Amino acid sequence: MVNSGLEGVVAATTSLSDVDGERGELIIGGYRVDDLAQHATFEETTWLLWHGELPSGSELAAFQAALAAERELPDATLAVIRECVRHRVDAMDALRMAAGTLSMVSDTASGIVARCPTIVAAYWRLLEGAEPLAPRRDLGHAANFLYLLRGVEPDAEHVRALETYLNTVVDHGLNASTFTARVITSTGSDLVSAVVGALGALKGPLHGGAPGPALDMVFEIGEAGRAEQILRRKIESGEKLMGFGHRVYKVRDPRADVLAAAAERLFTRAGDMRLYTLARAVEETALRLLEEYKPGRRLQTNVEFYTALLLHGIGFDVRLFTPTFAISRASGWIAHAMEQRRANRIIRPQSEYTGPRGRKWVAAERR
Amino acid sequence: MVNSGLEGVVAATTSLSDVDGERGELIIGGYRVDDLAQHATFEETTWLLWHGELPSGSELAAFQAALAAERELPDATLAVIRECVRHRVDAMDALRMAAGTLSMVSDTASGIVARCPTIVAAYWRLLEGAEPLAPRRDLGHAANFLYLLRGVEPDAEHVRALETYLNTVVDHGLNASTFTARVITSTGSDLVSAVVGALGALKGPLHGGAPGPALDMVFEIGEAGRAEQILRRKIESGEKLMGFGHRVYKVRDPRADVLAAAAERLFTRAGDMRLYTLARAVEETALRLLEEYKPGRRLQTNVEFYTALLLHGIGFDVRLFTPTFAISRASGWIAHAMEQRRANRIIRPQSEYTGPRGRKWVAAERR
Repeated sequence: MVNSGLEGVVAATTSLSDVDGERGELIIGGYRVDDLAQHATFEETTWLLWHGELPSGSELAAFQAALAAERELPDATLAVIRECVRHRVDAMDALRMAAGTLSMVSDTASGIVARCPTIVAAYWRLLEGAEPLAPRRDLGHAANFLYLLRGVEPDAEHVRALETYLNTVVDHGLNASTFTARVITSTGSDLVSAVVGALGALKGPLHGGAPGPALDMVFEIGEAGRAEQILRRKIESGEKLMGFGHRVYKVRDPRADVLAAAAERLFTRAGDMRLYTLARAVEETALRLLEEYKPGRRLQTNVEFYTALLLHGIGFDVRLFTPTFAISRASGWIAHAMEQRRANRIIRPQSEYTGPRGRKWVAAERR
Repeated sequence: MVNSGLEGVVAATTSLSDVDGERGELIIGGYRVDDLAQHATFEETTWLLWHGELPSGSELAAFQAALAAERELPDATLAVIRECVRHRVDAMDALRMAAGTLSMVSDTASGIVARCPTIVAAYWRLLEGAEPLAPRRDLGHAANFLYLLRGVEPDAEHVRALETYLNTVVDHGLNASTFTARVITSTGSDLVSAVVGALGALKGPLHGGAPGPALDMVFEIGEAGRAEQILRRKIESGEKLMGFGHRVYKVRDPRADVLAAAAERLFTRAGDMRLYTLARAVEETALRLLEEYKPGRRLQTNVEFYTALLLHGIGFDVRLFTPTFAISRASGWIAHAMEQRRANRIIRPQSEYTGPRGRKWVAAERR
């Protein structure tokens, strides 16, 4: 029996995260995502995944310092980023190429995680016609990323919102990119190879590579009063509503709630509350209409809808959405690689041959 | 039930190759590997995998010309290779990094396959202290690779031996690197991302990354008369005999036969026949002793044993073995990516959570 999507096949045990799609629950390292994401720094979340426990105060200080000390890019990496910008390469391809070159200098877990934000920010600065900035050791992972993008002291509400986002999407069971990292690791390969393979998977539009459209829809609607008319038209013409529905979650994606709460806080304190109110109205209308037109399909708001709203609220261009997702998920990929190594078995499924048989060689001139 | 190696799980249908481990048969595009490998050029084999039929004479000429026209490397790729050599990066990492940068200029199937030999040869020349050579359009894929490595007109027997090798290892069901390429492609990602992920998997020592030891053992034995004594000692001390045993093949790996025949021809016409005779004697003794010490385990000569002998006979340094494997398998990875796209479903297995639950956030200062 062929299972081409491997649905329902349990390919690993993990103590990293648990996705319960029927109950709408996500556990990360033993914590509910809503509890962890709003409280932790990204360094704490990363340590939790890599070590199984939250760090003590002194462990955390040492880990923050270690990451901060590894943020600088090798010249070869920066040269690749410059070439990417010159060739107008997409942000995810640039991150994949640049991250790949990190094995020239190091392939430690902390070195990879420390440098991903520097790569994305250097790419972005160069794309905007500015020079890359030097990382700041006095800032945490999230704050330093904002600083590297903008060159100004990051706003505390932006840092908290970004940190919450990074924590929320850091790990999510055996999605396609995480599974890629585990397959690569299962051959005995290195962490950079695993992360680069995972980046290649994440950029695919069916995985993380198409985060913009949910927000585009909100902007297209423009005001709450137009939501019903526009959404009805979309549904009736067979258009898929972006930001709704998930292969695993049959109830509301718990990450959507965490990000919605973070967005409410952010927009209340440091943003345009009208956009938040509009997005909420669009969501409510969309859910009501989806239930009306597709009863029983249980289409719920997914993580993309509030990712787009939150990252937009922090001021990120839509082209930074997937690379920012990747900056977070890199910690999860590495945690899975570590876990794969601890109880490794090479991952090698089978295929069923459906091609011809019994052909005999005929030279080119007689074909 | 957890299946951490996905053994026995059928994750795809394919018309590319069929591995029958019980009967010791390998079918590539409808042809038995022994029939195809000894007759075809690598261009013909690649076309067969990508189009399902061997090319007509005119299709072949056009494909050869297209590949020959795409061999030059972009400056950015060559710059990465120079940095790799400067940092003494391993050949497979260099190939992974350099191949990753190909998306700056193109991500076509033929562009990737055309340029992989140029990358490996440029790396090798620079490592040896020489400058990379310009590819030659008048030579086929295999001959041009030999020319790029050495700068001299390639010997016809070497070309035939290399071509046979490349054909033999071009595809082999859902091995870990091919599966990696399919998982990445299943997200809607691009060919370069798929190939780069697969290169990362292939370099792992449990996959393609440890091809040298089989030959080391032959050299260590040195003469046929010492084979039994040395091999007995190895087996009795619990050492694994390199070049014997395979997870899938329970009878002789059919690729070993093809490569043994190619090695016999090569060593007879253009090599050191003593080494061939010694390797044959080592193989016979090893098989006899494995049956004596591990009856019923059905440990047979695998593809690595004769790969090492054949590539050594062509004059390749052991560090070129896995990159040469990769140059061939790139055509197979791309064929699988094309096949995945034609009937795509995102590959997303499940994991079973074995970690803690019910933890509650405690601030760092109270941990």
